[in-house]
Amino acid sequence: MISPKKYHKTVKIPPNGFKSINEFFNHVFKDKEMIWMGQNTNHLNDHNEIKEAMIEFIKSNEYCKYPPPEGFPELQELILKDLGLKNGFESLITAGGTESLYLTMHSYIELGDSIITSDPGYLIIENFARRFGAKVTSVHIYNKECSYKLTPKLARDNIDNKTKIISLIDPLNPLGSSYTKDEIKEFAEIAEEKDLYLLHDVTYRDFAKKHYLAAKYAPERTLTIYSFSKICGMAGLRIGGIITVPEMMEPLKAVIINDLGTNALSQIGAIKALKTKKKWIKRVRERTYKNQKIIKKAVDEVEGTFIPVYPSNANMMAIDIYDTGVSPDDLTEYLLKRKIFVRQGSYTSRFYGNRYIRLSFSIPKEQVKIFAENFIDLMGFLRS
Amino acid sequence: MISPKKYHKTVKIPPNGFKSINEFFNHVFKDKEMIWMGQNTNHLNDHNEIKEAMIEFIKSNEYCKYPPPEGFPELQELILKDLGLKNGFESLITAGGTESLYLTMHSYIELGDSIITSDPGYLIIENFARRFGAKVTSVHIYNKECSYKLTPKLARDNIDNKTKIISLIDPLNPLGSSYTKDEIKEFAEIAEEKDLYLLHDVTYRDFAKKHYLAAKYAPERTLTIYSFSKICGMAGLRIGGIITVPEMMEPLKAVIINDLGTNALSQIGAIKALKTKKKWIKRVRERTYKNQKIIKKAVDEVEGTFIPVYPSNANMMAIDIYDTGVSPDDLTEYLLKRKIFVRQGSYTSRFYGNRYIRLSFSIPKEQVKIFAENFIDLMGFLRS
Ligand SMILES: Cc1ncc(COP(=O)(O)O)c(C=O)c1O
Ligand SMILES: Cc1ncc(COP(=O)(O)O)c(C=O)c1O
Repeated sequence: MISPKKYHKTVKIPPNGFKSINEFFNHVFKDKEMIWMGQNTNHLNDHNEIKEAMIEFIKSNEYCKYPPPEGFPELQELILKDLGLKNGFESLITAGGTESLYLTMHSYIELGDSIITSDPGYLIIENFARRFGAKVTSVHIYNKECSYKLTPKLARDNIDNKTKIISLIDPLNPLGSSYTKDEIKEFAEIAEEKDLYLLHDVTYRDFAKKHYLAAKYAPERTLTIYSFSKICGMAGLRIGGIITVPEMMEPLKAVIINDLGTNALSQIGAIKALKTKKKWIKRVRERTYKNQKIIKKAVDEVEGTFIPVYPSNANMMAIDIYDTGVSPDDLTEYLLKRKIFVRQGSYTSRFYGNRYIRLSFSIPKEQVKIFAENFIDLMGFLRS
Repeated sequence: MISPKKYHKTVKIPPNGFKSINEFFNHVFKDKEMIWMGQNTNHLNDHNEIKEAMIEFIKSNEYCKYPPPEGFPELQELILKDLGLKNGFESLITAGGTESLYLTMHSYIELGDSIITSDPGYLIIENFARRFGAKVTSVHIYNKECSYKLTPKLARDNIDNKTKIISLIDPLNPLGSSYTKDEIKEFAEIAEEKDLYLLHDVTYRDFAKKHYLAAKYAPERTLTIYSFSKICGMAGLRIGGIITVPEMMEPLKAVIINDLGTNALSQIGAIKALKTKKKWIKRVRERTYKNQKIIKKAVDEVEGTFIPVYPSNANMMAIDIYDTGVSPDDLTEYLLKRKIFVRQGSYTSRFYGNRYIRLSFSIPKEQVKIFAENFIDLMGFLRS
């Protein structure tokens, strides 16, 4: 046990004018006019059947009961089916993919192990790993040579005899890069060869043009992290899960936190979301994809800025503004004043945070246009 | 870090005819005819304004956004107000009281510390404590002499120089015993004197005739665990929290799991529940209280059975059936066949589990009557 005082804490400074991070988030949440591009949430999925299922459940008062501890079996199976992993796999339902990431670190990391991640990347994974005593090897991937991703070669170069897990966020938050079939296969081989695990975080999978599951190639070495927050548009309902083979699931179950289960209402919504997915996914994907073009056009108009990964395979991207001399912190702050919420790079990078902003675009077209106009306008203003 | 293989795991055997605990719970959840007395849930609070607030939130699609990481400030304040702890305290919202219990153990227990709990008691607390390396001193309290609770004297007798936390579940799950003002004051003194913390779990507080908060007497040494599952009837929505002073809150925040917040919809429901509490609490409390009498009458009719704590200060009680020779496991199983879900003692006791069943009674009167009849009937049958 590492005493809390010794934990690595990412210093998060609240934006100007806010007493705390919590107050800031409350402010953006409550402001209905805010254009929400700051957390990769999806504002396009308002499919009625999902809402109706949840409303009916509320009316029934069934939420007064505890759901089964590991999830409704119906939902557990629907997730496997959604991934095409029917045989030999199990799923565990958790409060968001976040809780699954946490359980993974708690059960698979022992003091002294090391984990390979990428910078930029999703820093909470590193924080969780450190809590349980891991050394984090964060590979710098912010360059064209590696296509802005942790390649199999980069992974190999960084493996040592302490490496226990390679963390693959695919598509990658914040850049939107993702893996080819060959790369995924190669990671599977590395896992076998080096006797380690793949943490395959597929939170943004459904936004990708193509996507390949490591679980198919290295089933006994892969922990797949799943989320209903993004494509399903259910971030505030905190539901996700983890998928693996039964032997790999055992240690996860041993460290379960909520032995009284994950929100029953969210599970009802999630079940309906998967059952109706065919009806709405095309619309959500297409609108999200098209929105990128609006942003690309604006970025092309501002000299010294570029999109590292275009098109992005996720519902978010980075815009590099380093050469303009404008700081991501300033741009973020000015956008916020205009009720546009995006994130400065430091939220997803310890090393390249001063280069880019990150923004998500699974929001209505009109809002993306407002962002595009304001981006051009503010970059002009801030540069001078 | 303790490797998962070394964790103490409570061996939970699924009831006859079920492949797993999860399958069993799914079965009881889905069966609408099941009389639900097995998890201390509250089926009486169907207050419309709470439901309407949640339904409106669903319709608004606001659930597609992440809530603030530590909870909506409005809810955080309402909880403090509900407890009458306005000044100098903070609250943190979590997925049920369960997650708060977990965070407490993660941040306050270091390898080698010891924690004092009671048997019978709520065993998950002990499991969490052990995960982080605590030695658990579980004080036997199943007797009249100590009024079926961990008294200040019993606590004193069991404190040693490793004791870090005394866990007070008040009212106590499973027995319904609770503390007087003098006892709470004495615990506050012990905490000061022996330099340790009080974990005051007040999950069932609102069912008690009278209730006193340790936080009022030992503010800087008390962690108060709060839940919306019971009096508010929101168990399936997984929402609760922890209340303490800012200095004590820091280590809890450092080990936060869901840095993307707790279910927004549940928080909206919880806000409305606290805002409307005056309108519905009397009805819920009174029906729950009266239901006890129906059960007492039935127990009085069956020779060799008794209720250790009567009246219970919670929405649950134990019925001791030891002298009848009938095993709690058998009784539970037979009741289940008649669609009445109660719990065998082993769920809340390692030592007295063979003596009692535990049942909750915040359910409609008609259902309590059905239990009462079947209890008499089955005890007659099983005894012979
Ligand atoms: C890469 C990645 N994994 C996991 C998550 C967590 O998602 P959730 O807990 O909402 O399911 C996120 C959220 O932004 C993410 O970007
Ligand atoms: C004593 C006690 N504390 C905490 C809890 C957890 O409640 P929840 O996580 O539903 O808020 C329970 C649930 O039964 C309990 O009995």
